[in-house]
Amino acid sequence: MPTASARARRFIRDFQPAEFISGVFCISNAQLGRTKNDKPFLKCLLKDKTGELPGRMWSIDPEFFRKLPTEGFVYVEGETQAYQGDLQVILQSVQPHEPSIDEMRELLPVCPRPVEEMFSELAAILDTLRHPGLKALARVYLDDAPLMTAFKQCPAAKSMHHAYLGGLLEHTLSLLNLANAICPLYPKLNRDIVLMGLFLHDLGKTRELVYDRAFSYTDRGELVGHIVEGAIMLHDRAQQVMRQTGQRLPRNAVLVLQHIILSHHSQPEFGAAKIPATPEAILVSILDNLDARVFMALAAARPDRASPVDLGGNFTEKQWALETKLFKPDPLAE
Amino acid sequence: MPTASARARRFIRDFQPAEFISGVFCISNAQLGRTKNDKPFLKCLLKDKTGELPGRMWSIDPEFFRKLPTEGFVYVEGETQAYQGDLQVILQSVQPHEPSIDEMRELLPVCPRPVEEMFSELAAILDTLRHPGLKALARVYLDDAPLMTAFKQCPAAKSMHHAYLGGLLEHTLSLLNLANAICPLYPKLNRDIVLMGLFLHDLGKTRELVYDRAFSYTDRGELVGHIVEGAIMLHDRAQQVMRQTGQRLPRNAVLVLQHIILSHHSQPEFGAAKIPATPEAILVSILDNLDARVFMALAAARPDRASPVDLGGNFTEKQWALETKLFKPDPLAE
Amino acid sequence: MPTASARARRFIRDFQPAEFISGVFCISNAQLGRTKNDKPFLKCLLKDKTGELPGRMWSIDPEFFRKLPTEGFVYVEGETQAYQGDLQVILQSVQPHEPSIDEMRELLPVCPRPVEEMFSELAAILDTLRHPGLKALARVYLDDAPLMTAFKQCPAAKSMHHAYLGGLLEHTLSLLNLANAICPLYPKLNRDIVLMGLFLHDLGKTRELVYDRAFSYTDRGELVGHIVEGAIMLHDRAQQVMRQTGQRLPRNAVLVLQHIILSHHSQPEFGAAKIPATPEAILVSILDNLDARVFMALAAARPDRASPVDLGGNFTEKQWALETKLFKPDPLAE
Amino acid sequence: MPTASARARRFIRDFQPAEFISGVFCISNAQLGRTKNDKPFLKCLLKDKTGELPGRMWSIDPEFFRKLPTEGFVYVEGETQAYQGDLQVILQSVQPHEPSIDEMRELLPVCPRPVEEMFSELAAILDTLRHPGLKALARVYLDDAPLMTAFKQCPAAKSMHHAYLGGLLEHTLSLLNLANAICPLYPKLNRDIVLMGLFLHDLGKTRELVYDRAFSYTDRGELVGHIVEGAIMLHDRAQQVMRQTGQRLPRNAVLVLQHIILSHHSQPEFGAAKIPATPEAILVSILDNLDARVFMALAAARPDRASPVDLGGNFTEKQWALETKLFKPDPLAE
Amino acid sequence: MPTASARARRFIRDFQPAEFISGVFCISNAQLGRTKNDKPFLKCLLKDKTGELPGRMWSIDPEFFRKLPTEGFVYVEGETQAYQGDLQVILQSVQPHEPSIDEMRELLPVCPRPVEEMFSELAAILDTLRHPGLKALARVYLDDAPLMTAFKQCPAAKSMHHAYLGGLLEHTLSLLNLANAICPLYPKLNRDIVLMGLFLHDLGKTRELVYDRAFSYTDRGELVGHIVEGAIMLHDRAQQVMRQTGQRLPRNAVLVLQHIILSHHSQPEFGAAKIPATPEAILVSILDNLDARVFMALAAARPDRASPVDLGGNFTEKQWALETKLFKPDPLAE
Amino acid sequence: MPTASARARRFIRDFQPAEFISGVFCISNAQLGRTKNDKPFLKCLLKDKTGELPGRMWSIDPEFFRKLPTEGFVYVEGETQAYQGDLQVILQSVQPHEPSIDEMRELLPVCPRPVEEMFSELAAILDTLRHPGLKALARVYLDDAPLMTAFKQCPAAKSMHHAYLGGLLEHTLSLLNLANAICPLYPKLNRDIVLMGLFLHDLGKTRELVYDRAFSYTDRGELVGHIVEGAIMLHDRAQQVMRQTGQRLPRNAVLVLQHIILSHHSQPEFGAAKIPATPEAILVSILDNLDARVFMALAAARPDRASPVDLGGNFTEKQWALETKLFKPDPLAE
Repeated sequence: MPTASARARRFIRDFQPAEFISGVFCISNAQLGRTKNDKPFLKCLLKDKTGELPGRMWSIDPEFFRKLPTEGFVYVEGETQAYQGDLQVILQSVQPHEPSIDEMRELLPVCPRPVEEMFSELAAILDTLRHPGLKALARVYLDDAPLMTAFKQCPAAKSMHHAYLGGLLEHTLSLLNLANAICPLYPKLNRDIVLMGLFLHDLGKTRELVYDRAFSYTDRGELVGHIVEGAIMLHDRAQQVMRQTGQRLPRNAVLVLQHIILSHHSQPEFGAAKIPATPEAILVSILDNLDARVFMALAAARPDRASPVDLGGNFTEKQWALETKLFKPDPLAE
Repeated sequence: MPTASARARRFIRDFQPAEFISGVFCISNAQLGRTKNDKPFLKCLLKDKTGELPGRMWSIDPEFFRKLPTEGFVYVEGETQAYQGDLQVILQSVQPHEPSIDEMRELLPVCPRPVEEMFSELAAILDTLRHPGLKALARVYLDDAPLMTAFKQCPAAKSMHHAYLGGLLEHTLSLLNLANAICPLYPKLNRDIVLMGLFLHDLGKTRELVYDRAFSYTDRGELVGHIVEGAIMLHDRAQQVMRQTGQRLPRNAVLVLQHIILSHHSQPEFGAAKIPATPEAILVSILDNLDARVFMALAAARPDRASPVDLGGNFTEKQWALETKLFKPDPLAE
Repeated sequence: MPTASARARRFIRDFQPAEFISGVFCISNAQLGRTKNDKPFLKCLLKDKTGELPGRMWSIDPEFFRKLPTEGFVYVEGETQAYQGDLQVILQSVQPHEPSIDEMRELLPVCPRPVEEMFSELAAILDTLRHPGLKALARVYLDDAPLMTAFKQCPAAKSMHHAYLGGLLEHTLSLLNLANAICPLYPKLNRDIVLMGLFLHDLGKTRELVYDRAFSYTDRGELVGHIVEGAIMLHDRAQQVMRQTGQRLPRNAVLVLQHIILSHHSQPEFGAAKIPATPEAILVSILDNLDARVFMALAAARPDRASPVDLGGNFTEKQWALETKLFKPDPLAE
Repeated sequence: MPTASARARRFIRDFQPAEFISGVFCISNAQLGRTKNDKPFLKCLLKDKTGELPGRMWSIDPEFFRKLPTEGFVYVEGETQAYQGDLQVILQSVQPHEPSIDEMRELLPVCPRPVEEMFSELAAILDTLRHPGLKALARVYLDDAPLMTAFKQCPAAKSMHHAYLGGLLEHTLSLLNLANAICPLYPKLNRDIVLMGLFLHDLGKTRELVYDRAFSYTDRGELVGHIVEGAIMLHDRAQQVMRQTGQRLPRNAVLVLQHIILSHHSQPEFGAAKIPATPEAILVSILDNLDARVFMALAAARPDRASPVDLGGNFTEKQWALETKLFKPDPLAE
Repeated sequence: MPTASARARRFIRDFQPAEFISGVFCISNAQLGRTKNDKPFLKCLLKDKTGELPGRMWSIDPEFFRKLPTEGFVYVEGETQAYQGDLQVILQSVQPHEPSIDEMRELLPVCPRPVEEMFSELAAILDTLRHPGLKALARVYLDDAPLMTAFKQCPAAKSMHHAYLGGLLEHTLSLLNLANAICPLYPKLNRDIVLMGLFLHDLGKTRELVYDRAFSYTDRGELVGHIVEGAIMLHDRAQQVMRQTGQRLPRNAVLVLQHIILSHHSQPEFGAAKIPATPEAILVSILDNLDARVFMALAAARPDRASPVDLGGNFTEKQWALETKLFKPDPLAE
Repeated sequence: MPTASARARRFIRDFQPAEFISGVFCISNAQLGRTKNDKPFLKCLLKDKTGELPGRMWSIDPEFFRKLPTEGFVYVEGETQAYQGDLQVILQSVQPHEPSIDEMRELLPVCPRPVEEMFSELAAILDTLRHPGLKALARVYLDDAPLMTAFKQCPAAKSMHHAYLGGLLEHTLSLLNLANAICPLYPKLNRDIVLMGLFLHDLGKTRELVYDRAFSYTDRGELVGHIVEGAIMLHDRAQQVMRQTGQRLPRNAVLVLQHIILSHHSQPEFGAAKIPATPEAILVSILDNLDARVFMALAAARPDRASPVDLGGNFTEKQWALETKLFKPDPLAE
């Protein structure tokens, strides 16, 4: 079986009707359907970082189906076909596939900035923490190699904002930079707690999201969620600080940091387990909202690449998370 | 200083105007006020299991005030005084006091049933668990003496329902009995998970509530809450099961039990971190609601002792948690 | 015209493309459309107890159309045809048809348990009522043959839970069994009122729902509803008790039973005309909710027959009535 | 015992401190309290049509208390006393009393217009109904002397709008006049149904409200409510029409009229059992709202008599039912 | 190029499959799509006053596309084609077109009543205003020819109610007639303010809506809205009254009229900038609601022309703005 | 009459019981009450920048009362008196008084920072605007002396946050500094529009609030509100820009700035006339919220001066605007 990297990859965005396809793709939502003649067939989505298309394989052995990942990577051969004004892929063969790092870069959407550059910037900001206990706590997290690897890869969300590899890091760094700029304007705020709270607030997402294939939620993400997960992670690591560094955390530090994690969605109906009840928790929840909303608004109203379809009007489609459509023209254009 | 138990206690319910008072009481919400002449004075509530009255000490040294508990126990001497149609206590002296077990029984409201009897009944039901892993998990909890001591003392709520010492145990036992009666009617439900979920669902309250003096919330109760606390407690204890008993828990057991704890308030606006998403979690959240509501309805509409003030109508005051006033007459009276 | 029962019925679930079809079916939502050439055509759904398919008859005399039932039973001949990835039936002929009892059993979904067996169980429980007045009232209902016939046939809902012939009886019986198990745990509850309230709570559905053909609402169901209907039915029958049995009902009995009927949906936004305001009304509304939700959760997460399409994931589709998708794995599987 | 009418009544509005009081009053919310010395005392409100004051009788035999009405009429002797910046009445004696018609006129607030004049106007409008069946139905109601007596006395609400004797008739007449003026502008509306619906929409209030003493709800009003009550009243009377007049009602007439009664509060959260689903039901619900809101707004912003306390600003207090305070100045004053 | 009026217009309602089409149409939502072969194509809607159809031109020069209006008028030639059970138009040519008055009458839906007749009726009612200042203000509006031209053309809404040319005038006139009939029943209401408030309440819609082609919102309508627009228009015109007529407006007149405009949607969630806080503002907001709802209810339940598709049931589709489906039968039919 | 400044002012915070009082105070909520003997008396609040007390003058001529301001300044003589655990002032004389600038500084709470210093800082930031049209618009506002005088005095709110003289300027400057720090992090945002939008967003408050005496709303504030007021102010001034400076504003500039003003409360239920629909409007609404919430949180949890009453617990009272009580301890205290 030839590897996909053996030849220049052909991206889904560029597919034409009636084109022969072969290579490695993300497979998503793989299901076993039944044709009218009661024969099993495979329904799935094929994805790469440029888009997705429905796939069908009209004959498949259920035994073999069980070996395929529901969400994962496969090597496929098949042919594109126009269907109801769109394309779909009729598959001739499909095989489970363990992708190389290079293949994954072609399959999953990635953050525009290099991950290591962002991570260094984040570590530099955390290095400005003043309290030795908090500094030791940050160190315990930064020294946790598997967690940091996950942190660098994880998207910030399944969809919505920063929904690409490295997005969680990018969003977290963006928040730290915001706090860095704002904290001097409110001298009564405890900057250490704000920065540490922002660093930790979404780390539970590394266990909530699946991001080594099509982005989705883990069972634990659905039933426990990143908010409680993040509080439990801090519970474990706070014990490590004392064990590993001998450094004592201030009496209320874990309490107020867990509170920031639990309250950063601000309202129960948005998923907060508590309403923010310290000045720092209030600031963290508003900054999180600010970065997410401004990111979404700019992505929709002023995208880097114009949409392939020119809608010809002054407004975008309704953006559900922003509850409105957005006005696109440059506000100062003549 | 004479101890309060040296003589028959005189209860707050029985106080008369202009009566000399001495003995041990709960002190609650102790504050330092300032008189119009800018002299510091003590404002507080004095409580025992029969009621509460405001207390004032018109002259107090702020240094001494700092030694008094905000919520706790004190030995006081003073005199009752009619004030705006009610009584208050003018204090001549107040001293911090470490109460004996017998004194606490006179100070805090207690469950009508004996605690140990209820605990034996609960242990007997948990002994009917079938899965060896869950049985081992129950054992880890039951063998944790400090936790079980707290569990036997803790009220089920600060006010509302089962708001007395032993109330959490009484409420939990009531739920286990309900589940015991109902599970046979729904054979597809996993009885072990239902029983274990009910046993664990409110255990975080032992860290959320202060109940060794006037009932109130701990800082941790306010900022983290019993729901997340209960999930963290299970996180720790699940690791103990494997370490201590060698028994392996089924792959998803901790996940679905944490989910039951996190979802047992059923809706985010009532404090749930997740919406119940397994049949067992759905049953647990409804049973919790059923026992609380029926308890409150019966306590309001059909109290054990008639209220000292006879309202003379067929309806109770509005019960806020039930969103209505209740009809009191026996429905089948002639 | 041959009767459908003359040969083994071929069920909709088993239809293949391009198959000739003849037999008796439910017809539903029959409408007169117009083709682009302005010719009238018949649009409808054909149903049996195993499923439903769209039907089209491309030429029909409007006079004849008026003789067809909008919701009812027809004898049809036609041919299946693949259409947009699904089947539809192109009809050559369609005739109104009065179905036999046997045909109806094949056309409408039915409760798995035999109706008479459930009814006997229900009558036995009602026989344990202690108050002679309530017993007489139950007798008036049980002796009303047309009503009891309807009660045995009626589904509990148009869709959602127990949505099949006999479902109302099954749901009511399930609730009586629940109350039977629970009432001993709350001795202050009036068991007679709880049982009688549960027996009556949904009887208005016999006039709200159409269930002798495709399930739908009657005009009266849409404009008055089963809740008020049930209260009116009790108004009439309470007068009968005195007239027919000479037995006097306690002064408040009709009042609290009508209140249970009017309040059993618990909140105005769920259709309750009053918020439950007696302990018994509170219990009835929670039990009704409990049985409906546990039924729906088990049906979705642990169906008797695996769905024909294997979704391959651990969660069901979102269940709108439960506001979430459900976790399907056995919680104690290794 | 002298009767109150033997001398000119002294009204509560005119009471001075330290004045001797004797005469017939409404008593309301009569309760048995306990003094600090544990002696029973009577707490109540005394009312006449000009206002209300708290009453206290510091010594009362509980046996005697049981003979007093909780809500009703009493002959009292006592003395006014200033208390916390207001007056209260210290009672020396209190006796149950059956008031004469003349006394009731002095005790309960009454509609400014004469009742019989309004009733004739209402009957004249109903006489313009065109359909003989509806005319017969109106006749059955108008010929029901006890109901019409109640209809003429009943207030339209316990508080809020038209909260005085005759208020229900006044409000109903106001609505009929509105409909009379508006129906010609919407010729497709069925005027007979609109007028009949308005006549019937609040008649259940005659059984919901207590209005022969201080206005309050009956038990039936609390547990069933005037909306369902009105539908049941129509259920009974529709059968009477056929029995008594031989006149047949059109097939859907009872259905759409019950629907108007059940839906006239327009939304479930305002008490509607159904959302208005006919053009006539929609109009009735909006007209009911219009008359109530305009009545309340004019009563608050442009009262007949200026309030005794001149608030000195341009806005009224917040009117809860209107969700705002109202601007009082004449909009066209210079 | 032949003009469309050169021959009898063929309306969209009457199109048949495979028919050659030429003439002037509204074009709406014109977009540039890309085919699978990456060639630009035109997607749009074609409309006349009888309906709308999708249009496609499979090859188009993007330069030329930029000359076409996104919303406007075009002369097209093409052919109808059946597509997914409906028709679409495949265009061979399309040209921008400036329509004549006669063409516009065929392209946009219009009010059934003649515009000038309605306008005269409206002016006659405004002539009954009594206060000279308000009369002068009305005159300033009526003398503003461009505004009145717009007022006569503008629809009352983009969809929902009175959504056709002249609809705003028709709706406003209907409200003035309602007020005319109702004001005598509430003598304390200031009739001048009610009439003037109704005349002005929706005039901002002339700048919010695009109605010289397919109805839609202007950018200003989306970002500012007709409610604030109407308040600004009054701000400008009130200054004109003094300048042009020397007439002084009463001190609070502009204030209460702006308040009526800002509050006529009654609740913030329906777009009101303020909650109605004068009796006149309350009446205006309820009348606006009354006319809109009764209009929608009659249009749905009792349309002038029966729908081409006979649904065969007693209820309409759910009417979203009325939150229910409507019962269609004549309520007094036998 | 001696002026208050003739001697050192005695502030309300320092009043003792039974102290003779004379001097200038704010009077607020002045009303005419009636004593039990039906004699008119004056009820009011007396305020200075340190607090407020109730005032009573037991005998007053209603004619004279009419000359007193409801909200304003008075010279009073009287005596303090203990009343229900607090002080009130019994007035012997009261006279209207026009306060000097120095007196006003002692009467109204003021911003801690000097007004002119803040105003210079604000002007310097606006000087960094780049677009000449926007610069000209800023100039028109800055050159409007009466408006700028008002802007420097006006509080940011009647209560809640920055509720003191100069508070609006302080809040606006705080927002401009935030934007200055944040805009570089989002290069696609139009900094000119953000800064200008923040400058203008609350300027309507200068007409909404009364702040030359006790803070309250103007009639115009109640009925129109600062949000629409600000949009009208911009409407007028945009016309001035063209007239006065010859500078043309970009086509959409007024539109997007009015939209920012109208949408800066973000949701209709918080008073927004539109939902923010440009990236700049979204940022402005979040920053406004951020500054208000952080200000309130810090003021409550970490006040400059400890409250005179030491509550002795770790939490503040519930802060309604923040929906919670706040945790007060230093998060990093040992």
